[in-house]
Amino acid sequence: MPERNLPENGGAVVAALAQRGVALSDIAAIVHDLQSKHCPGLTLDDCLESVRKVLAKREVQQAILTGIAVDVMAERGMLPEPLLTIIVDDDPLFGVDEILALAITNVYGSIGLTNFGYLDREKPGLLARLNAGGRNSREVHTFLDDLVAGVAAAAAAKIAHGRGPRHTARRPAP
Amino acid sequence: MPERNLPENGGAVVAALAQRGVALSDIAAIVHDLQSKHCPGLTLDDCLESVRKVLAKREVQQAILTGIAVDVMAERGMLPEPLLTIIVDDDPLFGVDEILALAITNVYGSIGLTNFGYLDREKPGLLARLNAGGRNSREVHTFLDDLVAGVAAAAAAKIAHGRGPRHTARRPAP
Amino acid sequence: MPERNLPENGGAVVAALAQRGVALSDIAAIVHDLQSKHCPGLTLDDCLESVRKVLAKREVQQAILTGIAVDVMAERGMLPEPLLTIIVDDDPLFGVDEILALAITNVYGSIGLTNFGYLDREKPGLLARLNAGGRNSREVHTFLDDLVAGVAAAAAAKIAHGRGPRHTARRPAP
Amino acid sequence: MPERNLPENGGAVVAALAQRGVALSDIAAIVHDLQSKHCPGLTLDDCLESVRKVLAKREVQQAILTGIAVDVMAERGMLPEPLLTIIVDDDPLFGVDEILALAITNVYGSIGLTNFGYLDREKPGLLARLNAGGRNSREVHTFLDDLVAGVAAAAAAKIAHGRGPRHTARRPAP
Repeated sequence: MPERNLPENGGAVVAALAQRGVALSDIAAIVHDLQSKHCPGLTLDDCLESVRKVLAKREVQQAILTGIAVDVMAERGMLPEPLLTIIVDDDPLFGVDEILALAITNVYGSIGLTNFGYLDREKPGLLARLNAGGRNSREVHTFLDDLVAGVAAAAAAKIAHGRGPRHTARRPAP
Repeated sequence: MPERNLPENGGAVVAALAQRGVALSDIAAIVHDLQSKHCPGLTLDDCLESVRKVLAKREVQQAILTGIAVDVMAERGMLPEPLLTIIVDDDPLFGVDEILALAITNVYGSIGLTNFGYLDREKPGLLARLNAGGRNSREVHTFLDDLVAGVAAAAAAKIAHGRGPRHTARRPAP
Repeated sequence: MPERNLPENGGAVVAALAQRGVALSDIAAIVHDLQSKHCPGLTLDDCLESVRKVLAKREVQQAILTGIAVDVMAERGMLPEPLLTIIVDDDPLFGVDEILALAITNVYGSIGLTNFGYLDREKPGLLARLNAGGRNSREVHTFLDDLVAGVAAAAAAKIAHGRGPRHTARRPAP
Repeated sequence: MPERNLPENGGAVVAALAQRGVALSDIAAIVHDLQSKHCPGLTLDDCLESVRKVLAKREVQQAILTGIAVDVMAERGMLPEPLLTIIVDDDPLFGVDEILALAITNVYGSIGLTNFGYLDREKPGLLARLNAGGRNSREVHTFLDDLVAGVAAAAAAKIAHGRGPRHTARRPAP
């Protein structure tokens, strides 16, 4: 996609997330939980701005659109076996979801990795809801919960980079 | 999937590759081209054995089955836009295919990376055919050519690891 | 290194870890904490065996030997600035330690990523001790704590792969 | 490092590269060779600007400073065995150099991977010189040649992203 299409795809990503039950403010809340103790004065608006910047990256958009498409096709039973069962069951040994999430998390460097792992294991807030929805009903969120954790981890890393090691600087970095 | 299902999924992967026009002997030929000058006496059978060992890895199977499933759904027009156009056109700025291929290539460590990049750029043999088929017809091989290059690069790395830096040892390593 | 040198380097890695205060049984205890609730009957000996298999991989040995060498040189003040201060202070924005740890964690696929992130954030047992030693004294463990977390995460992933999604199989996979 | 120190470390990176015989214009020339056929009108100055932007990233600076420090210590015989011999000999099975280079290449997404692999195998221009210097003399460039290839690949990916799939847009993207 040429650069001029990025806003359009940005909109496509926000719409795709919304259709799957994910509001950007939910992701911003996860980021705030992760970073507020390190960054006094950090607001939810700061976190939302950081989430938006992560979602403006082409690599991030591609990973989210691809992962959600696979979830949806699994939900509709349109994948071939054995892949269908692996994804519908959210097999803990399936790793492609983590691979896509890692590509998102790395957008602001490897320091996002720690937060991604923490979120993926502890599943605070929205993540627990997605995970439960995926396991108890006909919804499939095998990719989605990892993708959202990846976006939150990247947004937290972006804030950390912008504030420096002592988190005293005021302006997030570009 | 429990370990006992691995042979079954191994069969699923070989069948999925065959349905998309890829024989294991084609991949073995690429591996032989890559490694024979470094490993005098390397046979096509050695290469085929190495390809089979790569395809026995769960991580590799998952990446291949997922990538081919996305190709097939793109071919059938079943993906949402803008993802459908990006994948059908094999947009050079789409990077999710390389991400999955990298997960394959890394199965035997990062030394496979160099061969993957070389294959992905030069597209010898089968890879050129897949790429041309994908660009000129209704076939979509956006993921497949990268996945096959990833398998060949990993199989070559496995041979290199088994023979050591001077490639004099006879037995591939486990 | 030819394959026949692997045992030798395996010994070099165990010795390098011991010199830095890390016993394999400490790593095995972390693995046991991670996996025992998912794998009833898992023993410390099972975990130790899995740690040893991770440490037998060339890629893992190289990452550990390189990371420890950089820690030691930082301790002796032998690195140039600004790198010396970044590593001695364990700057939270330094990401090369996570990059090396990720290469270890990925040896058994991306499912190790979640445990790595959790360990790196929660720092149970040995990891807290390494981290405190590095921050309060003249010891530098900037790489070491991440490398150990990476080994533990990979060993846990290996156990999970061996036991399958329901963790009922008895024998770890190769 | 707080954001305000980035220019300082940027200077440190340029100086460290210069001390090891690498001018930014040499890297720009590699980028131009990679991209000029896809981007009519691309100038060496465009490529130099892209190289500078890659070198302004903290993650890139950290990887370069760490890798060069290890090369220098190997040159001075200050690393422990068996790591010293592995790095002085530029053992083809050593993969930590590729791991650091990959962290650089990924700064603008995974599309840089292909060019990295190509450069690492074909070693055009400066890269051949670094490789030969490292193999024939007392210089050690085990990390440096991969790091430089990683920077060139990332700079080429940045140009490709900025110009879109048909490379007709005039302004590189941020």
